[in-house]
Amino acid sequence: MNSRDYYTWWQRADLCYQHNQLIFHGRSVQQLANQFGTPAFVYSAARVRDNLVRLHTALNAVGLAGRFTLHYAMKANRFAPLLTLLKQSGLCGIDACSPFEVEHAVSCGFVPEDISFTATSLSWRDLDMLARYDGLCMDCDSIHAIRRWGTLKPGTAIGLRVNPAMGIGRVDNDKLHYAGEVTTKFGIYEEQFAEALDTARQHGLRVTKIHFHTGCGYLTPQLDQLERIIGHCFAFIEAAGTVERVNIGGGLGVPHLPGDQPLDLDQWAAVLHRQFGGRDLHLEVEPGDYIVKDAGLLLLEKTFVEKKQATTFVGVDGGFNIAPEPAYYNLPFQPLPLHLDGDHPTFTPMTVVGNINEALDVWYAEAMLPDLADHSHLALINAGAYSAAMASNHCMRGSFREFLLMEA
Amino acid sequence: MNSRDYYTWWQRADLCYQHNQLIFHGRSVQQLANQFGTPAFVYSAARVRDNLVRLHTALNAVGLAGRFTLHYAMKANRFAPLLTLLKQSGLCGIDACSPFEVEHAVSCGFVPEDISFTATSLSWRDLDMLARYDGLCMDCDSIHAIRRWGTLKPGTAIGLRVNPAMGIGRVDNDKLHYAGEVTTKFGIYEEQFAEALDTARQHGLRVTKIHFHTGCGYLTPQLDQLERIIGHCFAFIEAAGTVERVNIGGGLGVPHLPGDQPLDLDQWAAVLHRQFGGRDLHLEVEPGDYIVKDAGLLLLEKTFVEKKQATTFVGVDGGFNIAPEPAYYNLPFQPLPLHLDGDHPTFTPMTVVGNINEALDVWYAEAMLPDLADHSHLALINAGAYSAAMASNHCMRGSFREFLLMEA
Repeated sequence: MNSRDYYTWWQRADLCYQHNQLIFHGRSVQQLANQFGTPAFVYSAARVRDNLVRLHTALNAVGLAGRFTLHYAMKANRFAPLLTLLKQSGLCGIDACSPFEVEHAVSCGFVPEDISFTATSLSWRDLDMLARYDGLCMDCDSIHAIRRWGTLKPGTAIGLRVNPAMGIGRVDNDKLHYAGEVTTKFGIYEEQFAEALDTARQHGLRVTKIHFHTGCGYLTPQLDQLERIIGHCFAFIEAAGTVERVNIGGGLGVPHLPGDQPLDLDQWAAVLHRQFGGRDLHLEVEPGDYIVKDAGLLLLEKTFVEKKQATTFVGVDGGFNIAPEPAYYNLPFQPLPLHLDGDHPTFTPMTVVGNINEALDVWYAEAMLPDLADHSHLALINAGAYSAAMASNHCMRGSFREFLLMEA
Repeated sequence: MNSRDYYTWWQRADLCYQHNQLIFHGRSVQQLANQFGTPAFVYSAARVRDNLVRLHTALNAVGLAGRFTLHYAMKANRFAPLLTLLKQSGLCGIDACSPFEVEHAVSCGFVPEDISFTATSLSWRDLDMLARYDGLCMDCDSIHAIRRWGTLKPGTAIGLRVNPAMGIGRVDNDKLHYAGEVTTKFGIYEEQFAEALDTARQHGLRVTKIHFHTGCGYLTPQLDQLERIIGHCFAFIEAAGTVERVNIGGGLGVPHLPGDQPLDLDQWAAVLHRQFGGRDLHLEVEPGDYIVKDAGLLLLEKTFVEKKQATTFVGVDGGFNIAPEPAYYNLPFQPLPLHLDGDHPTFTPMTVVGNINEALDVWYAEAMLPDLADHSHLALINAGAYSAAMASNHCMRGSFREFLLMEA
């Protein structure tokens, strides 16, 4: 990779170099690192809001105003101050996937009516806890779930999560496929759908929503596939007969590697308008990554720079256990220096590694970095989602802090 | 897979079916599940001790008695009661890889002299904490680590972790390679070894140990490779000149899939005797998996059985986040029913899945299970290592309990 590509694709007004200093949310990242210590996740309230507003704007522009709701997938990042910020914004509800997520969302200010609940493999213990939240919108993902929820909450409205047996994801990553050729645990397939509707009727449940998850991380080139999948789901909607809402689960993608182009939201909204504009259906969208991923940085202290054989390694004071997505999904977080000195700094490829004794603890294989002698820290971008929320204390290296950056 | 293979390869005296009930550590697994609730990890003190004794016996038998020490790699499982049991046994010391691991081991009764410390990417904060533990045996894995430790503890004895640029691991898993063709962050390579020795001398450090990590999970077919790698490390030992101890890091493998044969410990010990028997070197071995992996079960409650398309799914009340190794490394934990009813139960392939909303949350793809209508739980075997120790609260599904089973 050339260094120009490395330093251009992610830059934007609120994350860029100004006077050679890396700036995030209007603040010097070096000053943040000095003040907060490391490892630290910093989240920009303004960027989160911008991401939400951009989605609203695109959907309003195609004429869907008042006909959609955004539900933030809180499993991406459940940092309590962030959840309260989202509630206060009025721009989104919550997508929750476990009883303790529901409880946590409520503890941060959301009410059950704000929460779209879609989970898998629920135990009776789970269901008993969920049944206490009147108003929660339950999407049943299987026939047994319909039967059990019907026993606990007869006469209520439910959603059905269906599986269209078609899916999309990053073309380069088969671990992110939730629907497709291989049968997965998610949702009710066409083959079992009639039985699902029967089961709902037997328990006096009204099926008012269809939920389908198409995969996550899709960008503009996958929009054709998204449209085909949506088209395929109308058969479920018509068979149910009583559907008022449609939830297109799964996640809008965020550029992650040089060469990725941002998802074209106008094209995305146009797809939704073409498919739903002429129908009397309320639309639910469940972005997780899209709302918080690029609103977060992970700040780490440099521990060493040392050449081993022909490779230059840069060590930092946090490993894959505090932000496991790169290791699970081969989606690296690009490391950036906090300052760029001189007019023409020279960049050489370096491998940035964490402090865990495992071979997979590599943050980035060929980071284009300047001489780091005068650098104390690095910042990893796109670390706002599926990082702290999935962190473990592996090797007892699990400590970190989180900070929500708001206006002065 | 046929069901005979599925039910035979893992059976042993303390883990088997008796009168159609699954027995572990002399106790009915069903009774354990009923008493403890789920998710629960149960660890057998007797099996842990057996694993240790088997290693001692094999090494004593080849004439290495009194010339070796076992260091349990606590990152595999740091459950405090287990650590105290190990200390009390007198059969092993500790292999630690972070300052908080050292502190935790000491809190469980170990003394610094019991601890072999080998880590990567240490910060000054880490080093300051480690320097408080006089007697700790520090293996420096890089030149910068030598320089820093020499500043803090001049005149002390150290080990050097070297990288022979050769490695072994499960032949089917390239994620477990710590040394080999690709340059890794681990250890000091031959190219930099002279500089490492110079650095130690400059800081008055005596190099009394060589540590090398050859990969983990090796079984009998990889013993030839192990021997070649050990042979390659004598060049480091001779170059250092002052070496009294050799640590062969990395882990002895445990059978994980039907078809895996247990590591032949006599052959393994014979390799070590051939290489070290005629030399005046004390040997350190660092098994993690070998000591605890097959001493642990994960008990989970069945949440559902349901057919989707042509696949029968069995849900349980715990997901990959509480035992991430299968998802990281494609090393599934085989699920077992807690009882086998009738003389000739029929087994059919079922996919056992957890309760996390992610596509990779599959415990086992074609488990050969009987009709589960009268079953409330499943037990996953080989769950004693890299499970609870790496657990996260992803989706707020992170709660579980752990129990050490001792004699009545």
